[in-house]
Order: sequence, then C-alpha cells, then structure tokens
Amino acid sequence: MTVAGVGEFGLIDRVTARLSYGESCLLGPGDDAAVVAAPDRRVVASTDVLVEGRHFRRDWSGARDVGHRAAAANLADIAAMGATPTALLVALCMPAELDPAWAEELADGLGAEAALVGASVVGGDMSASPTLTVAVTALGDLAGRAPVVRSGARPGDVVALAGRTGWAAAGYTVLSRGFRTPRLLVEAFRRPEVPYAAGPAAAEAGATAMIDVSDGLLADLGHVATASGVAIDLTRDAFEVPRQMRDAAQALGVDPYSWILAGGDDHALAATFPDGVALPAGWRPVGRVGAGAGVTVDGAEPEGPRGWDHFR
Amino acid sequence: MTVAGVGEFGLIDRVTARLSYGESCLLGPGDDAAVVAAPDRRVVASTDVLVEGRHFRRDWSGARDVGHRAAAANLADIAAMGATPTALLVALCMPAELDPAWAEELADGLGAEAALVGASVVGGDMSASPTLTVAVTALGDLAGRAPVVRSGARPGDVVALAGRTGWAAAGYTVLSRGFRTPRLLVEAFRRPEVPYAAGPAAAEAGATAMIDVSDGLLADLGHVATASGVAIDLTRDAFEVPRQMRDAAQALGVDPYSWILAGGDDHALAATFPDGVALPAGWRPVGRVGAGAGVTVDGAEPEGPRGWDHFR
Repeated sequence: MTVAGVGEFGLIDRVTARLSYGESCLLGPGDDAAVVAAPDRRVVASTDVLVEGRHFRRDWSGARDVGHRAAAANLADIAAMGATPTALLVALCMPAELDPAWAEELADGLGAEAALVGASVVGGDMSASPTLTVAVTALGDLAGRAPVVRSGARPGDVVALAGRTGWAAAGYTVLSRGFRTPRLLVEAFRRPEVPYAAGPAAAEAGATAMIDVSDGLLADLGHVATASGVAIDLTRDAFEVPRQMRDAAQALGVDPYSWILAGGDDHALAATFPDGVALPAGWRPVGRVGAGAGVTVDGAEPEGPRGWDHFR
Repeated sequence: MTVAGVGEFGLIDRVTARLSYGESCLLGPGDDAAVVAAPDRRVVASTDVLVEGRHFRRDWSGARDVGHRAAAANLADIAAMGATPTALLVALCMPAELDPAWAEELADGLGAEAALVGASVVGGDMSASPTLTVAVTALGDLAGRAPVVRSGARPGDVVALAGRTGWAAAGYTVLSRGFRTPRLLVEAFRRPEVPYAAGPAAAEAGATAMIDVSDGLLADLGHVATASGVAIDLTRDAFEVPRQMRDAAQALGVDPYSWILAGGDDHALAATFPDGVALPAGWRPVGRVGAGAGVTVDGAEPEGPRGWDHFR
C-alpha cells in the first residue's frame, strides 16, 4: 500500500484517528485551523524541520523514532524559553510510494512525545514530495513568567546544564560506522531524553538566559555568549564521561569530549543563573560567565569541531 | 553565491534583517522560540506546506510570488475560522546550491503578504534539502468570538462567497500550456488576492460555517456538507465568468466553470449564513443549504473534476 493509493484525505483520516488531545486543544484537526488554549495571553512558538538524509535515515530510525525526535526538537525549544508546551502542528511531505504505515507510526511517535508534557498534535498538512520531510511547529504557555531569552547572561552567573550531551552524537557515530550497538547510545540518537520540566523550573528559579542544546554545547553557549555580550568558561571536570560512552569512544578512536562538547541532538537545556541561586532539581553547574566574548574550556580555546551547520 | 556558502546562520541573519514586526510580535527571531500576543487567551493555528514541482515552479513564479502564496494559503486558513492573523513561522528547506537571494526574496513576499493583515514572520528554521519546500504555520486571534467551524451549516442557510474562484486555476492552465498571458490570470496564480477581512466580518455577522477555498469550491463545500450533515446546492448563474477568463477558456478549449467550481488556490472564503442575515461587505450569495448530502449545481450532480488531492 502507498500514500498515493490511500490519498490525501484518507491518510489524514488514518493519522488523526490515532491521535489523542490534551486539555489545551480546544479544537483539533479537521477544520481550517486548530484552536489552542493560551491562558497567559501570549503564545510561545517555534518551528524545526527534519529532512531525510540530513536529520534522519529510515534505515537507522523507525518512523516512531523520527516522530519522537521531531517532537522533542520542537518541545525542547519551548521548554528553553521557560514555557510549557501545549500543541504541535506538523507538515509532512512524503514520496507518493511511501507505506501509509510510516506516516501513522510517525504520528504515534509525535503524539507520544507530546503527551510526555501534556501537549498534543492539533493540526497539520500533508503533501507528496520526493524528499521525506517533517516540519513541526510547537506552541507553549509561559504561565505568567517572562520568557528566558539568550541575551540575559551576566558576568558572575553560574552556567548550568539539565539533561545529557554527547549521547546522541555518540549514537550517530556508532550508526555511521555501520554498528547497531551499544544500544544505549543508538537509542539516545533515535529518541532524545529531554528534561522538559527543567525549563519552567529554571525560569521560576530566576535563570538569566537559557538555550536548547541542539547544535552542540559549545556552539549553543556561543549563541548565549554573543547575544549576552559575555564570555563563558566551561569546567571540563564537570562533564563525566559515562562508561558506555568511554568504551565506545575508545573502540571508535574518538575523543568522547568531542561528543559531549560539540554533539547536538540530545536537546539538553543550558542556562545561566545568578551566583548563589540554588539550582532547581535536574540542573548541575558546568561553568561560569565572565566579561569578554566566546566560549572556553578550563580557560582555553577548545580544540575540534564546535557544532553543526545545516548547510555544510 | 549559494546558501551553502553563506551558511545556516549567515542566511538566517540575511533573512531576518529584511523582516519587520507587527505589534503582536512580542519576541521575534533569534531565540529558541518567538512570543506572540494571544489577547483572547486562545490561539488559532494552521500549517500549510508548498513543495517545488507540486505547488510551485521556479520558472513560473518568482521567490517573492512563492512567499506571497505560501503566506496567503496559511493566512486564509486563519481568516476562515473568523480570526485575525497575528504571526507566521516558516520552515524553509533548500538545495545547498540555491542562490541566497531566492530565500531573501521569499522572505520579502512572506513578510509583505503578512503585513496586509498586520501579521509578521516571527520565527522559523532552515535546512538543506534536495527538494525546495516552504512549510508555513500561521497563528491568529479570535477576539472573543467562537471559531466558525465547518460543521455548523443548517438546512435553509444561505451559501455565500467572498473573493474570487477560478482565477488561479485559469492562470495555472495558461502557464501549463506554455503561455505567459493573459497577465491577469497568470498573476492570480502567482499571488492570490485573499479577502482576509471577510473572515472576521462573517463571524461577526453570525456565519454558521466557513471554509477557505483551497481545493476547489465543490470539494471544499463538500467538506462543509459532510461535516455539517447537509446538502449544498449552488446556483450556476451566481458565478459570472469574467471576460478575460471567458476569452482564455475559449482559446484553450476549457469550460470556464471547471476553473470556477473546481479550481483551488485563489483562497476565496465560502460560508453559510442563517436565512435573512444581511451579508457583510464582500460576501455574495451563491447557493442554499438543504437537507441531505453532497454538493449539486442547479440541483444536478456537477460534471468534471471536483478538486485536488495532493497525492494523486
């Protein structure tokens, strides 16, 4: 069976039948637009797109995995503003010969990841395309708080991290060398574990700046440093190399810190807090904000790659 | 110059430098997410994707035209709920060898169309892709009104239309036969003229159902008839064939009513109103709601195509 055989409206029916709707969803799929609760009188909105061959491969990730990851990438952006996600909208472009089961499982993954934070898939669009593409928009609610932007870091602030970094990059390296194990790393690439609750908690605790780590920790903290007009220095010892990662790094001949400091796709959250603030649950200190510019590790310019440019 | 040469962040800087922001935009591009005003405590949201070769061709439409059309398709969905658009988010997937000027002109078109209704492009994402793809999400505000859904049409209601139908389809036929004129028709395909204000006006006047005509009038009124559990009968004489369209139809050997009744992409609005309601400015009666199912023209099953399936 193919999506062309099922047809646009048939496929929409199949996919929407598998979705369920959270309480923020006031009007779900089936009309010209969805209606989503925005109790705060503001809505936080972010868009991220995954393209086959660039962000995922169908022989490396199942459709459900791709759904989880597409949702996670967007939901993490909402959390990084200090907001709680409420809804996802999905534009799905597919080759006409694709099995409709792929789209259905993608929807399952999107819905399951959104349900982790009480959000739901409320709308979308589908089209045929030679390139399998999943463009997701996430909406969220600030619950009366100011958004935590990238430009608020001040010298003296503590740099803290919630969630893990390097795992997805390690899994990507494992897969790209033709292996399927260690399973823990491969799974981390397929489905990131995002510390969603740490975003609003950081906002509540007075975080001065926050960012979703999607390009790599050095690159993303570089965005914070540039936007804030400050320097950031990371403490290498703050990053423990887990045993499985160390073993895989040794076997593959990779410096595990290149994964931890420059690998994207885990969707950890990085934030800065005023010195002396008790970090909320899930956050650990990893560095310090100073005067100046750029990101260093133990006071020195880091070697190796810093992150990822989606055109190069 | 290519987008790969400029790089992801360079291109984002170039594009965002060309945008301007309406008053609903509380935080624009440059952070993990945008923040948009939602004074109504609800937000209307819709996503539509345009794929090169399927929804547009670069030899038929300039980048600015594609921007206008991508924005219009989404803004019309918001208007069809009776809401006023506030913001657009754009996921842009491009071949690495694309001239960055194309992306910049696309942004100009998106921004200019959004500005017609006081909305602005507040965020987005970019990626390389073999297939040029523009996925847009539009947000809007209901200003305290109930959304006008597809399921509210009742027997006895008047069916009314705001805006024009058939023009974009006629322009598409002209272009697909290798012609570039009549210019009026070709321009209608490149940049639809959407009666945005007619959406909130219809909601205010008590419209019982409303839809954006994007698949073709017969197909889209079919969605209303199905969702409402009613029959819709159109009056053929209510649709005047403009001179340029009649001349082109004759030259091309096409029945102009196949454009008017089955052509999409003009993004007219169709709505149903209780009998006796004074139609707001811009709306004209074109038919009647009855008991039963399906859409007829002068009481008979219409011949020819009814609309467009994006997988066939």
